[in-house]
Amino acid sequence: MATAVYTVEGMTCGHCVSSVSEEVGQVTGVTDVQVDLASGALTVTSSTTVDDAAIRAAVEEAGYTVKG
Amino acid sequence: MATAVYTVEGMTCGHCVSSVSEEVGQVTGVTDVQVDLASGALTVTSSTTVDDAAIRAAVEEAGYTVKG
Repeated sequence: MATAVYTVEGMTCGHCVSSVSEEVGQVTGVTDVQVDLASGALTVTSSTTVDDAAIRAAVEEAGYTVKG
Repeated sequence: MATAVYTVEGMTCGHCVSSVSEEVGQVTGVTDVQVDLASGALTVTSSTTVDDAAIRAAVEEAGYTVKG
Protein backbone atom coordinates (compact mmCIF):
# COMPACT_ATOMS: atom_id res chain seq x y z
CA MET A 1 0.00 0.00 0.00
CA ALA A 2 1.26 3.46 -0.88
CA THR A 3 0.22 6.96 0.08
CA ALA A 4 1.07 10.09 -1.85
CA VAL A 5 0.17 13.68 -1.07
CA TYR A 6 -0.37 16.40 -3.67
CA THR A 7 -1.51 20.00 -3.50
CA VAL A 8 -4.42 20.89 -5.77
CA GLU A 9 -4.97 24.46 -6.89
CA GLY A 10 -8.25 26.04 -7.84
CA MET A 11 -10.78 24.22 -5.66
CA THR A 12 -13.31 26.64 -4.18
CA CYS A 13 -16.09 24.54 -2.71
CA GLY A 14 -17.34 21.14 -1.76
CA HIS A 15 -18.39 20.42 -5.32
CA CYS A 16 -14.81 20.90 -6.42
CA VAL A 17 -13.69 18.46 -3.75
CA SER A 18 -16.23 15.94 -5.02
CA SER A 19 -15.06 16.32 -8.61
CA VAL A 20 -11.43 15.78 -7.71
CA SER A 21 -12.27 12.82 -5.44
CA GLU A 22 -14.35 11.19 -8.14
CA GLU A 23 -11.77 11.54 -10.91
CA VAL A 24 -8.79 10.51 -8.80
CA GLY A 25 -10.77 7.63 -7.33
CA GLN A 26 -11.13 6.20 -10.82
CA VAL A 27 -7.38 5.88 -11.34
CA THR A 28 -6.39 2.21 -11.43
CA GLY A 29 -5.01 1.02 -8.11
CA VAL A 30 -6.36 3.92 -6.03
CA THR A 31 -8.16 2.65 -2.93
CA ASP A 32 -8.83 5.88 -1.05
CA VAL A 33 -8.85 9.61 -1.76
CA GLN A 34 -8.95 12.37 0.84
CA VAL A 35 -9.22 16.02 -0.16
CA ASP A 36 -8.90 19.01 2.14
CA LEU A 37 -10.52 22.05 0.60
CA ALA A 38 -8.82 24.64 2.79
CA SER A 39 -5.27 23.50 2.13
CA GLY A 40 -5.80 21.84 -1.22
CA ALA A 41 -4.18 18.68 0.14
CA LEU A 42 -5.00 15.59 -1.88
CA THR A 43 -4.02 12.34 -0.19
CA VAL A 44 -4.10 9.30 -2.42
CA THR A 45 -3.89 5.78 -1.03
CA SER A 46 -3.28 2.97 -3.48
CA SER A 47 -2.74 -0.76 -3.51
CA THR A 48 0.49 -0.31 -5.46
CA THR A 49 2.51 2.74 -6.44
CA VAL A 50 0.44 4.83 -8.81
CA ASP A 51 1.99 6.83 -11.62
CA ASP A 52 2.17 10.50 -10.65
CA ALA A 53 1.17 11.40 -14.19
CA ALA A 54 -2.09 9.47 -13.85
CA ILE A 55 -3.02 11.37 -10.69
CA ARG A 56 -2.13 14.71 -12.26
CA ALA A 57 -4.15 13.84 -15.35
CA ALA A 58 -7.16 12.93 -13.20
CA VAL A 59 -6.96 16.23 -11.32
CA GLU A 60 -6.75 18.09 -14.61
CA GLU A 61 -9.66 16.08 -15.96
CA ALA A 62 -11.67 17.40 -13.00
CA GLY A 63 -10.65 20.93 -14.00
CA TYR A 64 -7.87 21.68 -11.51
CA THR A 65 -4.10 21.70 -11.32
CA VAL A 66 -1.57 19.89 -9.16
CA LYS A 67 0.91 22.35 -7.72
CA GLY A 68 4.61 21.68 -8.24
CA MET B 1 -44.66 34.41 -18.91
CA ALA B 2 -42.90 36.00 -15.96
CA THR B 3 -39.30 36.80 -15.18
CA ALA B 4 -37.90 37.37 -11.70
CA VAL B 5 -34.36 38.23 -10.69
CA TYR B 6 -32.75 37.24 -7.39
CA THR B 7 -29.26 37.58 -5.97
CA VAL B 8 -27.72 34.35 -4.71
CA GLU B 9 -24.98 34.44 -2.10
CA GLY B 10 -22.27 31.86 -1.61
CA MET B 11 -21.66 30.51 -5.10
CA THR B 12 -17.96 30.11 -5.78
CA CYS B 13 -17.64 28.10 -8.97
CA GLY B 14 -19.36 26.57 -11.94
CA HIS B 15 -20.45 23.59 -9.87
CA CYS B 16 -22.34 25.94 -7.59
CA VAL B 17 -24.03 27.49 -10.61
CA SER B 18 -25.03 24.03 -11.82
CA SER B 19 -26.49 23.10 -8.44
CA VAL B 20 -28.58 26.25 -8.23
CA SER B 21 -29.73 25.91 -11.84
CA GLU B 22 -30.74 22.32 -11.31
CA GLU B 23 -32.72 22.92 -8.13
CA VAL B 24 -34.46 26.06 -9.33
CA GLY B 25 -35.20 24.41 -12.67
CA GLN B 26 -37.22 21.77 -10.85
CA VAL B 27 -39.65 24.30 -9.38
CA THR B 28 -43.09 23.88 -10.95
CA GLY B 29 -43.72 26.39 -13.73
CA VAL B 30 -40.07 27.38 -14.21
CA THR B 31 -39.14 27.28 -17.89
CA ASP B 32 -35.65 28.82 -17.86
CA VAL B 33 -32.93 29.57 -15.31
CA GLN B 34 -29.91 31.78 -15.89
CA VAL B 35 -27.21 32.16 -13.24
CA ASP B 36 -24.32 34.60 -13.35
CA LEU B 37 -21.55 33.45 -11.04
CA ALA B 38 -19.74 36.79 -10.79
CA SER B 39 -22.75 38.84 -9.73
CA GLY B 40 -24.81 36.05 -8.18
CA ALA B 41 -27.73 37.08 -10.39
CA LEU B 42 -30.35 34.37 -10.74
CA THR B 43 -32.90 35.04 -13.47
CA VAL B 44 -35.93 32.80 -13.39
CA THR B 45 -38.38 32.62 -16.28
CA SER B 46 -41.67 30.87 -15.69
CA SER B 47 -44.90 30.13 -17.47
CA THR B 48 -46.87 31.69 -14.65
CA THR B 49 -45.88 33.69 -11.60
CA VAL B 50 -43.87 31.45 -9.31
CA ASP B 51 -44.00 31.74 -5.55
CA ASP B 52 -40.92 33.54 -4.28
CA ALA B 53 -40.79 31.13 -1.39
CA ALA B 54 -40.45 28.18 -3.75
CA ILE B 55 -37.47 29.78 -5.49
CA ARG B 56 -35.83 30.64 -2.20
CA ALA B 57 -36.40 27.13 -0.94
CA ALA B 58 -34.82 25.67 -4.08
CA VAL B 59 -31.75 27.89 -3.72
CA GLU B 60 -31.42 26.83 -0.09
CA GLU B 61 -31.86 23.20 -1.08
CA ALA B 62 -28.84 23.68 -3.34
CA GLY B 63 -26.91 25.02 -0.33
CA TYR B 64 -27.03 28.78 -0.96
CA THR B 65 -28.99 31.81 0.14
CA VAL B 66 -31.09 34.40 -1.66
CA LYS B 67 -30.03 37.88 -0.62
CA GLY B 68 -32.71 40.23 0.66
